[in-house]
Amino acid sequence: MSFNTFGQMFRFTTFGESHGPAIGCVVDGCPPRIPLTAADIQHHLDKRRPGQSRFTTQRQEPDAVKIMSGVFRDEATGQDVTTGTPILLLIENVDQRSKDYSDIKDKYRPGHAGYVYDAKYGVHDYRGGGRASARETASRVAAGAVARRIVPGLSVRAALVQMGPHKIDRSRFDWNEVDNNPFFCPDPVQAEFYATYLDSVRKEGSSVGAVIEVVAEGVPAGIGAPVYGKLDADLAAALMSINAVKAVEIGDGFATAAMRGEENADEMRIGNDNKPVFLSNHAGGILGGIATGQPVVARFAVKPTSSILTPRQTVDRYGRDTEILTKGRHDPCVGIRAVPVAEAMVACVIADHYLRHRGQVGEGRAWPFPMPGA
Amino acid sequence: MSFNTFGQMFRFTTFGESHGPAIGCVVDGCPPRIPLTAADIQHHLDKRRPGQSRFTTQRQEPDAVKIMSGVFRDEATGQDVTTGTPILLLIENVDQRSKDYSDIKDKYRPGHAGYVYDAKYGVHDYRGGGRASARETASRVAAGAVARRIVPGLSVRAALVQMGPHKIDRSRFDWNEVDNNPFFCPDPVQAEFYATYLDSVRKEGSSVGAVIEVVAEGVPAGIGAPVYGKLDADLAAALMSINAVKAVEIGDGFATAAMRGEENADEMRIGNDNKPVFLSNHAGGILGGIATGQPVVARFAVKPTSSILTPRQTVDRYGRDTEILTKGRHDPCVGIRAVPVAEAMVACVIADHYLRHRGQVGEGRAWPFPMPGA
Amino acid sequence: MSFNTFGQMFRFTTFGESHGPAIGCVVDGCPPRIPLTAADIQHHLDKRRPGQSRFTTQRQEPDAVKIMSGVFRDEATGQDVTTGTPILLLIENVDQRSKDYSDIKDKYRPGHAGYVYDAKYGVHDYRGGGRASARETASRVAAGAVARRIVPGLSVRAALVQMGPHKIDRSRFDWNEVDNNPFFCPDPVQAEFYATYLDSVRKEGSSVGAVIEVVAEGVPAGIGAPVYGKLDADLAAALMSINAVKAVEIGDGFATAAMRGEENADEMRIGNDNKPVFLSNHAGGILGGIATGQPVVARFAVKPTSSILTPRQTVDRYGRDTEILTKGRHDPCVGIRAVPVAEAMVACVIADHYLRHRGQVGEGRAWPFPMPGA
Amino acid sequence: MSFNTFGQMFRFTTFGESHGPAIGCVVDGCPPRIPLTAADIQHHLDKRRPGQSRFTTQRQEPDAVKIMSGVFRDEATGQDVTTGTPILLLIENVDQRSKDYSDIKDKYRPGHAGYVYDAKYGVHDYRGGGRASARETASRVAAGAVARRIVPGLSVRAALVQMGPHKIDRSRFDWNEVDNNPFFCPDPVQAEFYATYLDSVRKEGSSVGAVIEVVAEGVPAGIGAPVYGKLDADLAAALMSINAVKAVEIGDGFATAAMRGEENADEMRIGNDNKPVFLSNHAGGILGGIATGQPVVARFAVKPTSSILTPRQTVDRYGRDTEILTKGRHDPCVGIRAVPVAEAMVACVIADHYLRHRGQVGEGRAWPFPMPGA
Repeated sequence: MSFNTFGQMFRFTTFGESHGPAIGCVVDGCPPRIPLTAADIQHHLDKRRPGQSRFTTQRQEPDAVKIMSGVFRDEATGQDVTTGTPILLLIENVDQRSKDYSDIKDKYRPGHAGYVYDAKYGVHDYRGGGRASARETASRVAAGAVARRIVPGLSVRAALVQMGPHKIDRSRFDWNEVDNNPFFCPDPVQAEFYATYLDSVRKEGSSVGAVIEVVAEGVPAGIGAPVYGKLDADLAAALMSINAVKAVEIGDGFATAAMRGEENADEMRIGNDNKPVFLSNHAGGILGGIATGQPVVARFAVKPTSSILTPRQTVDRYGRDTEILTKGRHDPCVGIRAVPVAEAMVACVIADHYLRHRGQVGEGRAWPFPMPGA
Repeated sequence: MSFNTFGQMFRFTTFGESHGPAIGCVVDGCPPRIPLTAADIQHHLDKRRPGQSRFTTQRQEPDAVKIMSGVFRDEATGQDVTTGTPILLLIENVDQRSKDYSDIKDKYRPGHAGYVYDAKYGVHDYRGGGRASARETASRVAAGAVARRIVPGLSVRAALVQMGPHKIDRSRFDWNEVDNNPFFCPDPVQAEFYATYLDSVRKEGSSVGAVIEVVAEGVPAGIGAPVYGKLDADLAAALMSINAVKAVEIGDGFATAAMRGEENADEMRIGNDNKPVFLSNHAGGILGGIATGQPVVARFAVKPTSSILTPRQTVDRYGRDTEILTKGRHDPCVGIRAVPVAEAMVACVIADHYLRHRGQVGEGRAWPFPMPGA
Repeated sequence: MSFNTFGQMFRFTTFGESHGPAIGCVVDGCPPRIPLTAADIQHHLDKRRPGQSRFTTQRQEPDAVKIMSGVFRDEATGQDVTTGTPILLLIENVDQRSKDYSDIKDKYRPGHAGYVYDAKYGVHDYRGGGRASARETASRVAAGAVARRIVPGLSVRAALVQMGPHKIDRSRFDWNEVDNNPFFCPDPVQAEFYATYLDSVRKEGSSVGAVIEVVAEGVPAGIGAPVYGKLDADLAAALMSINAVKAVEIGDGFATAAMRGEENADEMRIGNDNKPVFLSNHAGGILGGIATGQPVVARFAVKPTSSILTPRQTVDRYGRDTEILTKGRHDPCVGIRAVPVAEAMVACVIADHYLRHRGQVGEGRAWPFPMPGA
Repeated sequence: MSFNTFGQMFRFTTFGESHGPAIGCVVDGCPPRIPLTAADIQHHLDKRRPGQSRFTTQRQEPDAVKIMSGVFRDEATGQDVTTGTPILLLIENVDQRSKDYSDIKDKYRPGHAGYVYDAKYGVHDYRGGGRASARETASRVAAGAVARRIVPGLSVRAALVQMGPHKIDRSRFDWNEVDNNPFFCPDPVQAEFYATYLDSVRKEGSSVGAVIEVVAEGVPAGIGAPVYGKLDADLAAALMSINAVKAVEIGDGFATAAMRGEENADEMRIGNDNKPVFLSNHAGGILGGIATGQPVVARFAVKPTSSILTPRQTVDRYGRDTEILTKGRHDPCVGIRAVPVAEAMVACVIADHYLRHRGQVGEGRAWPFPMPGA
């Protein structure tokens, strides 16, 4: 992907800084005649929006999205539909407090991108991380809300499955619980524990990491492409591009290293509708970079928020040793709000591959094939 | 990345199937006047070449590379140098035995890409996996050999750090041992164990997974780019695109999920040469998608080879239940030969980002910066 | 180029429709630390702005641009500079009169994109041409204003050299006259004639075409690239992508067809500063797709405005024969306002190639070269 | 387009130099299951092949193409079909005579790319122009032969319509005559004149330019895209990227500058099959960058061959004034062999846009549309 543009057929370009006047994105390549209103997008932005519980940053941003182009009223239905041309989604920033950062404007926060941006560009937008802020992810969620509407029957859901060292109990995994707690946790028992745990982390002026799992159902078999446009390669890039993500795995992921061939490879049978059925899903729905038709399953790790209230050794941009203590307003576990962001990125990757596949192959060939001579 | 092309400024496109007449790649965007001979590339191909020990496939391929374009004799030095135009690297296949596959030509091998290619394209090149074969990775190694010559002072090394459930002992990690055993293992004690272990796996007609670690030193601070062209996002895609890879992590990777902010974020001090020094490298050399100047560290998991001698349930392309047992010639641990492939992919990503950075920023600004008014 | 994004290293994506709330662009890949204010951009937009004379559309758009991201105050100089991250340039539409179009909302205007957009997308934004409106070119001018600041010493100027069948007199060509008349005409005598001529065209409810010439000086020798990234190929695409353009030529263009080899090929001599001097510039500053260091010269034809007051035969989107007469507010010679647009596009192409060249080649090799053995 | 790769969905990357061991291309993104044999491609290469008459270079190259990957025998039909993966097309060079160039190895040929390649790369492949040779166009013809098979019902034909100052007589235009003379001239009377004329040009050691016209029929209405991926913008780039091309026009092209709106805009009526019929085709089949369904018509100018037997002033790469006289073997009118090359490039652009359109829009909406409320 190039700079700030994601995708090939379904593409979006994001812009904006944490403390600038606005953030947002331009979505391009979207198929025409898809019903789309600001409310459709707002619904997803509201899940990611900060300041909704004591477990996320207290910055108050309504994240109200405006559709500035690319939709038009369809006279026949009275609905606003996409036109197939660029969709500008604009979100104004309203609760910047740049002076929170004036004490540290020449210092680099350990674990943040301040130093590397300065090493690269010679510019240091110290106000809340500037372009490197996780605030950028609101734009991803907005683009993802469009992407979700492209592939018929697609469902993309994510959940937090580990906070700090504490994993959920898989036997209690319930998608319906995800929206019942402020952690997007599918295990209601562990969610209660997380509340206590994260309170203590926050009060200590510390932060903690997390693991998120994303599951996409209804991904058509055959989308994806060899060998550098693999669906899993693009998913890995998409998830790794989210702020603070340090690891990505598909299906059984790192666990496959310890497996034997006969444990790992998913066997097949012919199912009732004459389609192949896999007897397991170690592959996480992808083989050879192409979707098998099973659920696509990915997991990724989010590192602990680097902005903490504990003093840390660092340097400033004039080459001097110093100390830093980041006040500002921060998430004690930035992994929580990565949940809707991950859903958005996975939806974008799948929408993009769906269109790319349709371009190259069109309707394709109905499986199974007739036997030669039959 | 698009289809079979990797990279933006430093680009390569691979072609060829396991049992076709040849494989190879076209490298494009390479800077001019870089000395390059076939021997420079052959050196790296020889590391990946099959049939060198009983622990890899017994297919005998010399993997002899020919440079068919893009170099020219420099009259002043007598050296062959790159011209800046496309470099075709051609490797002929010589030891195809397609009839090994005739028994299974209509069946899908579990864990392989046979079914998904057929679902996508309606074509089933059963001969050794066709385009989906790991044989394609020879082309990557060839491209990587060119990439290694682009960034001054860059070193990229990889090693196998886990086979099956057996990790190396980190206290014995020695890069010099990597070429002393057939596993690219940096722990000589564990390497001996791996020989016995893999023999038993092989004799059981089974296979096993592995974890590989790649370390790039000499990566200039500042290369990489926000926010969808992140260095780690591109590394994740590059490594995930290697056959059989199911997981990728950067720096402390999945372990960061369990960490506190004060453990994870790398503190900084001013070093002797007035450059910043990091006091640790949990980040694996990348923050905000941009290189910090520390070693770039990545790890990835390779699943166990799916072609095994144990009978497995599967279906054929005509919609019938059946069984399969893959004879052919296969690696009992395909992760071993992923080691030189990983080095190549990481070298390509870094070369590409080096050129992209030079394009946007040029010489850049010398760090540290003068104090305003000073 | 993909959809609504132009360029590879220096990139911009435009959005917005003629009668939507706003138009604009996101510029990405811009080098950092380039001083940039809204006034720098406004200066160029004001040249293209409609309603400035009776010879252009009477729509009153201030085309006031706002920089919404990608610049930051440099503390040392007090200047706003680019940060190297996306620059959102937003221009609000203020003088939409969509009801002008309500009579013709189901009809296709001959010569316009209405039918083909509908054939492609199944959506008909009849309000002033929607996305296909020449209003989009304001975004190009904004992007071009940024591009102009990238290549040191670059100057890009354009002029109208033919209106209808009436060419300028080349012996009177004077760049200083271009801003002295409402036609960007470098021949002051012909400019007076054009005023009378265009008045009569306008009063007849008709329109007329034009030819524009663009000259870029200070283009570094060596930028451009074989063989599909040629500088002239990208210029041709960039100019052809401007609304209503039907032809592009470089240097002597179509006239070269009638030439002999000895007339056309530009001879060379060594100049005073030891650099090569060309004795003519039939090539228009480009050979083999790469800049020679001479002025880059391009010309293009703009067809007559298709919206005219004369009734025309057409069809509607429901498959019925009908007639159309376009009231609205239109340019009698849309070629006039193509002049600043052409400058912008040429500046963007050159900036993009400058960065692409710097990426691949870096500082390059000082010409002439030392003789081997000398 | 990037460097040596053309296209987005239907892509090809060419490689090779005039006097290297081989040239060719890798075609990627081709839809699967398209019947394809070397003979299908050879047919088109044979039209471009040199040495077939006294009017083209006497270099004897069989241009025998080999398909090295990307096709597979379909068991059901016995046909070789594309697999959807990369197709390597390899053409060996057999009649290099590099010593023809040894006299001029340090000199730049006026009108050639020698100087600019050297200024860019610091490398001078003097052997027949190296990568800048028109020999590269054989690779384009090979790729084009694949492209032609993608869009159902597409026909792409080209003809030479002007040699030197001598245009054909349009009233005698007959596509059936094109293959009856060595000039691809559709006017048999003018073809006879060209034989005499070009003989005299050749004997004088000179060369001459030409104009070629390309017509694509069966281009589906709706392919193409706003606003930087316009069909005509991509055609302009594709044709301008052919060696020696200096101008491109679509439809009435430069002539539109002199037209009135009522002359130029093509009126529409409903035809017999309820599809729109245009009453003229001044637009050349493209409006707003999107195909109208009419024939796509383009014309381009090819400059006279720069390698001539007349001595010319030039410089060498060591900064010295000198003279040059190019012996070698050259086309007196390189425009002739541009005819099959142009067909190939136009076929590639249309195939690419066809797939891009199918990706974004799929089946689309049947025109005309139902009336709301009807």
